[in-house]
Formats: sequence, structure tokens, C-alpha cells
Amino acid sequence: MRDVSIIGVSMTRFAKRFGISMAELGCEAAVGAMKDAGVNRTQLEAVHCGNIFLKQPGQAVMDQVGVSGVPVFNHENACASGSAAFYNAWLAVASGAYDMVLAIGAESMTSHISGLIAVPEGESLDFDSGLTAPMMFGQVARLHMEKYGTTHEQMAKIAQKNHDHSTKNPFAQYQKSFPLEEILASRLVADPLTLLECCPIGDGAAAAVLCSDRVARKFRSDPVHVKSAIFTSGEYQSDPDPDVVELKACRVAGAKAYEIAGIGPQDLDVLECHDCFSFHELLVYEDLGLCEKGMGGVYIDENRSGMNGDVVFNTSGGLLSKGHPIGATGVGMIVEIVWQLRGQATGRQVEGAKVGLTHNGGGGTDKVSPGSMSINILTV
Amino acid sequence: MRDVSIIGVSMTRFAKRFGISMAELGCEAAVGAMKDAGVNRTQLEAVHCGNIFLKQPGQAVMDQVGVSGVPVFNHENACASGSAAFYNAWLAVASGAYDMVLAIGAESMTSHISGLIAVPEGESLDFDSGLTAPMMFGQVARLHMEKYGTTHEQMAKIAQKNHDHSTKNPFAQYQKSFPLEEILASRLVADPLTLLECCPIGDGAAAAVLCSDRVARKFRSDPVHVKSAIFTSGEYQSDPDPDVVELKACRVAGAKAYEIAGIGPQDLDVLECHDCFSFHELLVYEDLGLCEKGMGGVYIDENRSGMNGDVVFNTSGGLLSKGHPIGATGVGMIVEIVWQLRGQATGRQVEGAKVGLTHNGGGGTDKVSPGSMSINILTV
Repeated sequence: MRDVSIIGVSMTRFAKRFGISMAELGCEAAVGAMKDAGVNRTQLEAVHCGNIFLKQPGQAVMDQVGVSGVPVFNHENACASGSAAFYNAWLAVASGAYDMVLAIGAESMTSHISGLIAVPEGESLDFDSGLTAPMMFGQVARLHMEKYGTTHEQMAKIAQKNHDHSTKNPFAQYQKSFPLEEILASRLVADPLTLLECCPIGDGAAAAVLCSDRVARKFRSDPVHVKSAIFTSGEYQSDPDPDVVELKACRVAGAKAYEIAGIGPQDLDVLECHDCFSFHELLVYEDLGLCEKGMGGVYIDENRSGMNGDVVFNTSGGLLSKGHPIGATGVGMIVEIVWQLRGQATGRQVEGAKVGLTHNGGGGTDKVSPGSMSINILTV
Repeated sequence: MRDVSIIGVSMTRFAKRFGISMAELGCEAAVGAMKDAGVNRTQLEAVHCGNIFLKQPGQAVMDQVGVSGVPVFNHENACASGSAAFYNAWLAVASGAYDMVLAIGAESMTSHISGLIAVPEGESLDFDSGLTAPMMFGQVARLHMEKYGTTHEQMAKIAQKNHDHSTKNPFAQYQKSFPLEEILASRLVADPLTLLECCPIGDGAAAAVLCSDRVARKFRSDPVHVKSAIFTSGEYQSDPDPDVVELKACRVAGAKAYEIAGIGPQDLDVLECHDCFSFHELLVYEDLGLCEKGMGGVYIDENRSGMNGDVVFNTSGGLLSKGHPIGATGVGMIVEIVWQLRGQATGRQVEGAKVGLTHNGGGGTDKVSPGSMSINILTV
């Protein structure tokens, strides 16, 4: 397998962009990434697109971009659809089969949302009984509070941090700080999680151009290297009383990603994680090994994931504030990390950032259904 | 890149199976392929699933099979969705990243069909004006008749042949022969194509287990080798008056597949092609190089694609009679060719078949939109 670099990235602003189609959003991101890479339409050899609502989304985007004659694959892995596109684009290059591949994630939720968005057929029992994503995370948050003494204030601090970060990100859906009290007092969505601790619905697209490390410097002097790319699913639990406050898939994928990259959590500078709810980021502190199990609340109390912390989490504002147009999210994380590693994250730049990680999950936790889990480690 | 073998295949009967879910159909095929390969649940390292209607179809199937802890990717490429799953499963093994991968295609059309099935967003002009798939193929068929003197009877003979073949295939949706006169006299769908020249709506699933050639014989003494796997898209035409009776994507992909496999069309024994309409198979005779351009009608007149012909086309009955549950079709073609190459196609076996080809397209012809095109060449 060959080493793979990212030589171009771009994204639209994430926002409620009524009346703009998924294909138009995707085209804006795709063309931006190709320009950023210095690659033209005839140089792309394959396209992998993430989207959850539409048929042949990649074809629709490429129809706008004007790319034909190359394979265009469409990936649907719920909230990890963009990461599925990125992973398969990475594998396409790593395999040696393709030299230049576009990964794109694009979603117009305001045009297409209907019903539940991350529910596989045949698994409706949990969801039909009301156990949707906010409920699941709310319940597990309560268990974490009981087991480890974590407080709701600690979770809300994560939302506060990420909303703060988004004020420096012109691509974020919201760009507004909120006092902790306002977050805590906002409308309850799923006890204990409030509205400002839940990611919004929105539209947007993100894209990345990948090529083999060998030729990357022909296109850019600052390629970003994909040191490890992991995509897996959660596992069914044989334990009749499993520890539901641990994200096993995240632990397994994280350990593998660290091993392949030859680094540990202490080496990370920036990290974009799947903070669909404030509490999810707290779990990630623990399950990606930034702190001991149960110490996530203390980790945020000590501001170790903030702008001057050990590892800056979600400089983009995260799903909570940058937004979560489902299929675009995984690739959007890659874009933010690439900008950080290139020193281009104006206003929110982590000085000297050299190692970044993306964490993106989709389709149920590993306790409920074998949802997807993506971890990528990128370096300069 | 490593050589890849197929060590297990299975499919459900294609049929209108009201009340049976996509996940149940997929499970039947997946478990069958795993048993056929002698592979258990813990040996699968990745899953690629093709389906066009549902969210997280692969997760729903694997939930029934009881596989977790491995990546499960979902592919939607219109009528070539199953081939997209097979191609990416092949690449996963060929890359060296995975040793044992399941490709599955599953579709319940009777439960889920609504509206047009192969239309990407933003390309509705043709389709909104009535240029659906039957209309497109009907118009091109008429042009072929004008340009080359092809007759409607010649097209209908293809339908007659494939309906005949299906009488020997217990997995086919229809298993009934029709006199040529009855095919010609059946209800007109899109001039000149009649009902018995158009593929039906149906449900079904097919699956294949792929592994590296190196370990294949540990599982089976008769692995089938994937000599070439091509997946691409049609190209936009710069010619203002293009030759619309040529399938350029098929020609390009076919030439590449022959080159990689080191064979020519004269070396083929069996071929499963995308006969969504009778006329499409006629085009494939020409554009895969079985005969000269314009001679497809003569090719069927001389029965060169029949059971005692040069290359037996669609021993399964093809899309026309075996059926076309969209996401399942591409993998279903693989299953039939594997059975033929193993000598297991009881009742319809082509004696001594050693080289087979699958041809599967999806999402518009290359003249209308850059639809997907898949060609695989398999050998014993």
C-alpha cells in the first residue's frame, strides 16, 4: 500500500441554504478543492461522494463540475457518510489503482429531511419507541453522571467552547458565543442535553483531493499526509450488562490509528470530533485516550481541550456550531485539520500544529447497533 | 495489487417477494455465500453492499447475519449498485488492506419503489420530459434500425432467447418460454420495445465472498479468479452530433478489461450482460466486440449468443427474465458466471466454460448523463 497525501481541500459555509441544491453545494466544494490542489477536471481519476438523501449524488455533483469518464461512487453510512467517501478515496490511492481521487461530502438537509435520518431498515424497534439519537446520548450522559460524578455543567462547557471556536470560523453555521448559563437554560431536548448542546440541521459540502505521497509535491509544497485511515463498525456486546458509557468502536479504531501512525494521544495538536451532542465530545476525551475513563468532566474543567489546552478539540466549532450537514461532516473535518496543519486556520490557528485527528461516527452507537466509526490521523 | 479470487457465491430467487424485507433477502444471500466459501462470521473483514432505496442497507443485512466490528460500506450507483459493491470489495482485497471481503447486493423493489429509480438530482429535464429508460432505449433502437437495417424481430429474438434460458434457472423471476410472435405482440412499452422485451420489477439478493488468490485454495479447490475489474462512467460528448447507437463507456471499459485479462472477445465462453431491454443486449454484442458495429441483428439471427453459440449470453435469463432487483443485479451476474465456471449451472451449463464476463450499467447512457459502467472478467 502506498502513502497518501491530501493536496487540496475546500468547503462551503455550513448553513441553512434554502433553495441551493446539493449538487450546487457539492460543485462549489469540489471546484474549490481542485483549485486548491492545482488539479484540473481531466486529472481526476475517480470520485467518492458521501450523502444520505439522494440517488447518485456524486453523479449530480460531477455533472455540475463537468467531470465524466471516471468512476463515481456514492457512500451512505449515516453521519459517517463523508468519512466513508474519504476512506474509500484513500484506499483507492493507497492501493495503487488510482493516482488522483476526489473525496466529497455534500448534503442539503433543508431540502430533503424527512423522518429519522440514521435508522437502518429492520432496526426500528429502538427508534420507534423514541430512542432517537438525542435520547440515546441523553441517557448515556445520565449514566456517566451517576457512575463518575460528571456534571451537566461540564458537558455544557464543551458546547460553550465549541460555540466560542465557531466565532472565528467563517465557514461555521453559527458564529456566536453563549454564556454557560444560557446554554444550561436553553430548551431541554433530551435530559440533560439542552438545545445549545445539540447539533443543528443544515446544508453544506466539503471536498479533498488525494494523491500518492510520491507525486504530491508536484502539486503543492505543503501536502498533508494521511498517516492512518481507519473505518470500522461497533461490535455487538456479548456481555449482558455492558459498560454503556464506553465507546468501544472509538477505542478500538483509535488504538489502531495510533499504532499505524506510530504516535500516541499525547502527540496530537488538533482534533475534530463528532460532537453531535456536547456529551459525545466528553466521551471522546476518554475513549481516544486523552484522559482516564471517567475523567472527561475534569478534562474540560481544566480547559485541556480548549485553545491553549493539550489538544485543541473542534477549532472549527464542531458539529455543535460549525454544523452537521450529514454527508458533508466527515470531509469537513478533514478540511479543518488540513487548514490547521498548513497554518491556514486564520483566527483560530493552533500555532505549530503538526499532528491532527478526525473522529466521525454514524448510525447508532456500538451498544445499540453496529454503527460506523472513522478515525484518520493527518500530519504535515 | 494482489490477485483476487471468488470463493463463495449465493443468491435468492429473484421474484416479487411481498412482505420479505431487503435485510431478510440480503441475509439469505450473505449466509449462503459464506457457507459456500466455508467462511464464518468472524472471518469477514469488510462488507460492501449495493442497494438503491434504503439507508444503511449493509448494516441492516449484517444485523440479520450477526456480523459486527468490521467496516460496512453502502453503494448506490443506480442499476450498477451491486457492481459498485463488488468492485470496491475487489479493490479492498486487491489493495492488500483486507483478506476476506463480502460483496452483497440486495433490493426489495416491491416494498420501496416510488417515482423514477435512476435519476440523479439536478438532471430531471430529460426525465421530466418523459425520456425515461424505456423511452431512451426505444429511441436508440429505432435509430439503430434506420442506420443498420436492424429489425424489431431481431431484438425480440434476444428476449425469446433469454426467456428460454430462464426456464432452466430456478433462481429466475420468470421461468417461461414465449413464441416470438407473442413477444412481438405483447403490449407496446416504448416503440419498438414490447412488454416481454423489458425487464420486470422484483426483489432479491446476491452475494460473493472475495479473498486473495494466495489463500483462496485453503477455502475451496475451485476458486474463480477476477482477471479484470473495471468500473467507470460514460463521457460527455463534445461532438454536437454524436453516434448515439454506440455505447462508448462499454467499448472503453471492455477494451480495458480485455487488455488487463490478456484475452479478447473470442476467448469468452459465457457472458451476463445488462439486457434491461432486448435491444441493449444487441448493442453489447457490438460494443464488446463480439461482432462488427451494426451487425448485432445478424449476430442474434445466427444464434451466436445462444446456448450453442460463440459466447452464451445470459444463461441466467438476464435482466429480462431472471429479473432486475436493482441493487442485486451486478452481484447476481457474478453469481451466475461463477456457477458456470465451476460447472454448477445445472440445466443451463455451458460445457467447459472457462472464461466469463459480466457487463452492468447504471444511471443513464453515456449520451444522456455519465452513467456507471462495470465490466468484470472471471476465469477458472
